Amino acid sequence: MTRPIKLSDVAKAAGVSQGTASNVFNRPQIVRPEVRERVEAAARALGYAGPDPKGRLLRAGKVNAIGIVTSDPLTYFFDDPYARVLMSGIAAACAEQGAGLSLVSAVNEEKLAWNIQSAIVDGFILLCIEDGFRLVELTRERKLPFVALQYENRDPSISAIGVDDFDGARRIAEHLGALGHRRVAIISLQLAEIQVGPVALADVEKAVYSGTRDRILGYLRGMESFGVDPHTVPIVETRNDSETVSAALDHVFSLSEPPTAILAMSDRAALIALDWLRAKGLKVPEDVSVVGFDGVPEAERSDPPLTTIAQPIERMGREAVAMILEHDDAPRQVMLDTELVIRGSTAPPRG
Amino acid sequence: MTRPIKLSDVAKAAGVSQGTASNVFNRPQIVRPEVRERVEAAARALGYAGPDPKGRLLRAGKVNAIGIVTSDPLTYFFDDPYARVLMSGIAAACAEQGAGLSLVSAVNEEKLAWNIQSAIVDGFILLCIEDGFRLVELTRERKLPFVALQYENRDPSISAIGVDDFDGARRIAEHLGALGHRRVAIISLQLAEIQVGPVALADVEKAVYSGTRDRILGYLRGMESFGVDPHTVPIVETRNDSETVSAALDHVFSLSEPPTAILAMSDRAALIALDWLRAKGLKVPEDVSVVGFDGVPEAERSDPPLTTIAQPIERMGREAVAMILEHDDAPRQVMLDTELVIRGSTAPPRG
Repeated sequence: MTRPIKLSDVAKAAGVSQGTASNVFNRPQIVRPEVRERVEAAARALGYAGPDPKGRLLRAGKVNAIGIVTSDPLTYFFDDPYARVLMSGIAAACAEQGAGLSLVSAVNEEKLAWNIQSAIVDGFILLCIEDGFRLVELTRERKLPFVALQYENRDPSISAIGVDDFDGARRIAEHLGALGHRRVAIISLQLAEIQVGPVALADVEKAVYSGTRDRILGYLRGMESFGVDPHTVPIVETRNDSETVSAALDHVFSLSEPPTAILAMSDRAALIALDWLRAKGLKVPEDVSVVGFDGVPEAERSDPPLTTIAQPIERMGREAVAMILEHDDAPRQVMLDTELVIRGSTAPPRG
Repeated sequence: MTRPIKLSDVAKAAGVSQGTASNVFNRPQIVRPEVRERVEAAARALGYAGPDPKGRLLRAGKVNAIGIVTSDPLTYFFDDPYARVLMSGIAAACAEQGAGLSLVSAVNEEKLAWNIQSAIVDGFILLCIEDGFRLVELTRERKLPFVALQYENRDPSISAIGVDDFDGARRIAEHLGALGHRRVAIISLQLAEIQVGPVALADVEKAVYSGTRDRILGYLRGMESFGVDPHTVPIVETRNDSETVSAALDHVFSLSEPPTAILAMSDRAALIALDWLRAKGLKVPEDVSVVGFDGVPEAERSDPPLTTIAQPIERMGREAVAMILEHDDAPRQVMLDTELVIRGSTAPPRG
């Protein structure tokens, strides 16, 4: 059987370095036309289809890389439990397609705009979990395909993937209601620009982040079905970090009627709550029930393991990559289902 | 006080889009000369120093991104506990410098060579933990600054950062010896190209991966100081995954004289060992002591917490970024110290 033609063969035949031959397929715009023609002729003569069997992108003269954009610091990709699972799914899908990943991030809007404009990629996946920097507007200027995560229901003109936040939140609140909990507190993610502390129900409606708003409204609807008046449920906005989540817990447990259950809007916040309660000598679930949201691996291994709403996080990442690589101009909105996972962090309240 | 001149002001003055103005600073080679001159003139006229206060790289016409190269799958960056800490340090340093990150990976050598050649970055950090694909040789062709991690002692002509593997391994073996352990088994990382199973001491000397070789020799030296003959210590090579580490444990515990302590060459392998021993009904540390290597966060939270050799992983990442951004042509070899961290997974052997 004949050996498959390699890029190195094409480079040899055309009398150029492998790097130059690579550029002809990867970044033709930076190769002198006469060199490009020589390499392309050699490729045709040898019957070289392209660097990668699945190399549609390359043969189309693209750079074969996807940019992942967040307005969180670059460290978010590796430090945040949710981001790690999401990136693992994105990375797996890119690896299967032979595509690379560029991480695009900045905590300053001008710098972020800059990084988006200068990223050398074929398309973007936007992590809109915290959309303080108008990621969509900044990215649209590049006129490249992009998919916004956690952005469903916000703008039908763009492709987005997310979960039904309202429904997931409603179901986990109903789980607490069914156990007999009536005094619950909501530890919320950000609603709008940096603002931390107790929020009024009226402010929830005005939330910039629809996912946060929908989860709060879902929690309240779920409790309402057990006769709880939404206006009596404490809601505290946090930055989903140890400092602000702990401060939120200090607040709700200092109320005249402290909660018997905590509705944490992320597993990360719920895990912080487990540590805070342990430090206060409160037992979970005997003294206080805690639920999370996300379904990250850490939520299975915690003590006790977390009752949570599991999102298909890895699948969201894979679908986002597929949407970019199979890009057609029709925007698609994908809404994935969540799953209520009941573990050891919830029980009936003390009689 | 006067408002600082922004890139958008320069673009406006030059009558080009902000994206084009960005290219002039980021990727001048792709901007038509006359446009470039117009934008540069506008920048001079307005006294615009560059897009980023720390924008030395940009003003030098670089792309302001660093490529991280591994021959492991792209998912390694997000799934592996060691890689996550390392990347967190790299990401933090890049964020401080306003530099982006590109992940360069492939499980096929031709594809990896391709990705290295086509990566649009100012320099590379090579994760040589498993150097099956001659990462250094492939990268050298790009003629860009690069730093090889875990490559110390291999080639004085290139910049490298690593830890003293021999010394760390010797110290943790001596810890087991001091506790009274004489029958130990080594669960090794890869020594050379894919090959898994028991290895003879003679093969260790021929190892491709000097880090793996040095750790084995360090373990043996440590045990030797307690009168243990190196030739009697079982050494099993694994791929540092659940399947091959479990198979290695099946092997050493089926020996006529099973070990009282396991020297796992990574925390990941040690954590897999904890699960394997639990499944067999063996108690750690009562029945078997287990030690790891790396010092990842998961090693603190395991049950029991792991005794291990802690590497300054995050610092390695930060130093690597600094070496690239402050690149001068003199290669530097940095050897960082490790720390023996004694936790609950080690105790004297059963009398």
